[in-house]
Amino acid sequence: MNDELVGRHFLALEDFLPSEVDTLLDRAAGLMTAMPSRPLEGRSAALVFLNPSLRTRASFEVAMARLGGHAVVLTPGADAWKLEARDGAVMDGAAAEHIREAAPVLATTCDLIGVRSFPVMESFADDAREEVLRAFAAHSPVPVVNMESALSHPLQALADLLTLRQVFGDPRGRRFLLTWAYHPKPLPIAVPRSALLAACRAGMRVTLARPKGFELPDDTMALAARFAAESGGDLSVREDPDEPFDGAEVVYAKSWASPAFYGRFADEAPLREAARGWRVTERRMARTAPNAPFMHCLPVRRNVVVDDAVLDGPRSVVVPQAGNRLPTTMAVVLSLLGAGVAR
Amino acid sequence: MNDELVGRHFLALEDFLPSEVDTLLDRAAGLMTAMPSRPLEGRSAALVFLNPSLRTRASFEVAMARLGGHAVVLTPGADAWKLEARDGAVMDGAAAEHIREAAPVLATTCDLIGVRSFPVMESFADDAREEVLRAFAAHSPVPVVNMESALSHPLQALADLLTLRQVFGDPRGRRFLLTWAYHPKPLPIAVPRSALLAACRAGMRVTLARPKGFELPDDTMALAARFAAESGGDLSVREDPDEPFDGAEVVYAKSWASPAFYGRFADEAPLREAARGWRVTERRMARTAPNAPFMHCLPVRRNVVVDDAVLDGPRSVVVPQAGNRLPTTMAVVLSLLGAGVAR
Amino acid sequence: MNDELVGRHFLALEDFLPSEVDTLLDRAAGLMTAMPSRPLEGRSAALVFLNPSLRTRASFEVAMARLGGHAVVLTPGADAWKLEARDGAVMDGAAAEHIREAAPVLATTCDLIGVRSFPVMESFADDAREEVLRAFAAHSPVPVVNMESALSHPLQALADLLTLRQVFGDPRGRRFLLTWAYHPKPLPIAVPRSALLAACRAGMRVTLARPKGFELPDDTMALAARFAAESGGDLSVREDPDEPFDGAEVVYAKSWASPAFYGRFADEAPLREAARGWRVTERRMARTAPNAPFMHCLPVRRNVVVDDAVLDGPRSVVVPQAGNRLPTTMAVVLSLLGAGVAR
Repeated sequence: MNDELVGRHFLALEDFLPSEVDTLLDRAAGLMTAMPSRPLEGRSAALVFLNPSLRTRASFEVAMARLGGHAVVLTPGADAWKLEARDGAVMDGAAAEHIREAAPVLATTCDLIGVRSFPVMESFADDAREEVLRAFAAHSPVPVVNMESALSHPLQALADLLTLRQVFGDPRGRRFLLTWAYHPKPLPIAVPRSALLAACRAGMRVTLARPKGFELPDDTMALAARFAAESGGDLSVREDPDEPFDGAEVVYAKSWASPAFYGRFADEAPLREAARGWRVTERRMARTAPNAPFMHCLPVRRNVVVDDAVLDGPRSVVVPQAGNRLPTTMAVVLSLLGAGVAR
Repeated sequence: MNDELVGRHFLALEDFLPSEVDTLLDRAAGLMTAMPSRPLEGRSAALVFLNPSLRTRASFEVAMARLGGHAVVLTPGADAWKLEARDGAVMDGAAAEHIREAAPVLATTCDLIGVRSFPVMESFADDAREEVLRAFAAHSPVPVVNMESALSHPLQALADLLTLRQVFGDPRGRRFLLTWAYHPKPLPIAVPRSALLAACRAGMRVTLARPKGFELPDDTMALAARFAAESGGDLSVREDPDEPFDGAEVVYAKSWASPAFYGRFADEAPLREAARGWRVTERRMARTAPNAPFMHCLPVRRNVVVDDAVLDGPRSVVVPQAGNRLPTTMAVVLSLLGAGVAR
Repeated sequence: MNDELVGRHFLALEDFLPSEVDTLLDRAAGLMTAMPSRPLEGRSAALVFLNPSLRTRASFEVAMARLGGHAVVLTPGADAWKLEARDGAVMDGAAAEHIREAAPVLATTCDLIGVRSFPVMESFADDAREEVLRAFAAHSPVPVVNMESALSHPLQALADLLTLRQVFGDPRGRRFLLTWAYHPKPLPIAVPRSALLAACRAGMRVTLARPKGFELPDDTMALAARFAAESGGDLSVREDPDEPFDGAEVVYAKSWASPAFYGRFADEAPLREAARGWRVTERRMARTAPNAPFMHCLPVRRNVVVDDAVLDGPRSVVVPQAGNRLPTTMAVVLSLLGAGVAR
């Protein structure tokens, strides 16, 4: 394989051309029917988790194993040294190792580095700098794969796109509802932001429904609108928990924190509690187009974000959606490493 | 291979016919002399540990690796999300993910799921429902292997049976002493319950020795008695720490909590402390039949449960007993997955 | 392969003849150009980490994977049982398992055991007994590899020697400066002790620079002096942070605790704080021989132990030095297991 994806970092899906995203999806779909034989023999990935994971851990580790390679899972602050990301830091505090060493050192044994670093949720501006991820990208001589940062979860977004392909063939022009849902805790925006951008870029007719106060950041909305315009899709925003379900052809639910209240979540609480009713129910799902599937990135809090009846009903695709993490991750790894994807 | 074990869960040894247990033991013994070449190439197991492990982790992980497969080790509550098991739960507490999603999602990447979930030790009735294990079994489309639950440790029991075969050839009619031993903490009953049932079902002449107050549950004793009757063995219970050693042909020591005092361990303490003398000593071992082996599932507290002189003496088989975990686990995995066991 | 390294423990580099160390280095260098194909197929290592790790974990785990084998990573006290090391202990405390069982049990599934056990830093005499490492070595029937103990870090020392070979070809007669550096916490002596002994034994002209009060133990210094005498090198000690850089051909920086103040680190603090100026700066590096490389075992605290300008400058070899951990570990594992090193 000799192509434009080899050797690149995979930090956000919007860093890649639509044609490149299509290539990744084609490869993922191809891997579901024909697996190359151990194309990553002798190769390794370092997976650096600063936060918990089930799907990403299992799918990435199994992706490496099925391809004949190996994944080393490291947890800085627990089994590995706490990391410093800031340039020029005088390291007399808790962090014992700088990413300026950690990244190139891991690259001496591994061919790729995955990084999961959730936002701290104190300052949005600080989180939006994605210091840990960006430091790995700056100092690693091998491809860095974002396993979820403050702003992006591109492996999830790629699996979401593969799911939409499986549902619709071509998702272009289909009505995609991304609805906020109540959750007891303020959550990061990486997944809804990535899903919104991906759906807009895929030419879908996107509705973002969320309570007043739970706006996504202005620059995210502007980028989404630009993607919708470029792709022939469209984007609208609603502040109603019910009506946007009308005619939706796919429903994607997710909770997120209000960026406006970042770091002041006690102040956000009344707003959040007032929106307790934003839950995906059978009644709401009855308003959609016939058989519109229900998507969620998981983990999901049952009967808080979405009712059992929806999750356990025939329209939930959350499990195959999660299952798409494996072929999409394999496609990303093979493409970045330039391995095993003969076409 | 085309047989009755393929695709089944492995939750308790008593779920399997004696002939099926024999098949597993035959296969385990066979794997000790001839290993198939990478029969699990491209296949994976998710090992979900809610509690610590040394033998189970090492033997299961190495079993998968030696067979050409891979094990993903997950620790919900630490590196993975805290799990909810109860149907209908409104998930607004600490658990972020329901087993109704976790199990089928893991099954999208893994061919088998191992689960270790110790009892909470507050309510025996609650623990006996084995909610976590049973939820995985209910919601996983791939085989679930019990890596120790509240009531059962079938991988250990299978290794115990292989050990008894190695010692006796045919253990039928041999005198098996299962003796309670002092331990500073109240421990689960999974291992002694599983060992008792396995020995009774194997047709051994079983003596259960334990202090008054440390009865095993009535239904366990009834099942053990039925197994003994069906197999031509027998079962008796003694409340003496010395005399049951007389003529024993194998001694299996284990401590366990008094189910009657479950959740009230401060009340159990006087009973427990009064039984401090229940320790396996050389003096006691001198009463057995010549060279009767000493068994324990490990880990074991030296000089509390059993004296150094016994563990370090020639009659201890605790290390080869633990070593039997590898071939028995390989036999279970291969049998459930229908792989690599030509006969 | 049929040689004198097969089956041995790898606890300290000084346990091996200089010719044996050379064999390991030759094999490591050879592995950097030609890798055997899966010489460890079906074989496993248990890596027991009582302390955090990045380089050792990644390089050992990848070494096993690249050679076709597998590493099981265990963390006693977290995912595995807390271990007891002392002979004759009455185990009624926190430790649930004795190394007398853990070591031989791991050897039933694994072909090699790695152990990382840092000093407790309360009593130097206690730490110097290296109870955990020595218990594994005493009770394991398979080779034990020290992944850093109180006194030794032989895998690091071997990588250091490979680095010196790469820099100098033959390091004999070259001026090696081992300089203490300020660090906010009292650190173990394993790395500086191992580096000192290795450099002295390699026939280098060694200067140890450290503040008064931060002497290395007398027996270490005596052994280093003997090694220097035997190898045709020499050893001197200086208490100046500047002048020893004059003419140095390689600078190795490391912080360590004062053994004299072990367990009384509040008393050591004034001494330590008075030595805050012992930091590797560009000004100091300007005094060395031209282009003298800068070495450190990592992790390193930037702008505390050494300035950014040095680490980010062209003379820092800390990343390739860490990269040498992979081939040296592969050489050790293959040599101890007698696998895959045709010559």
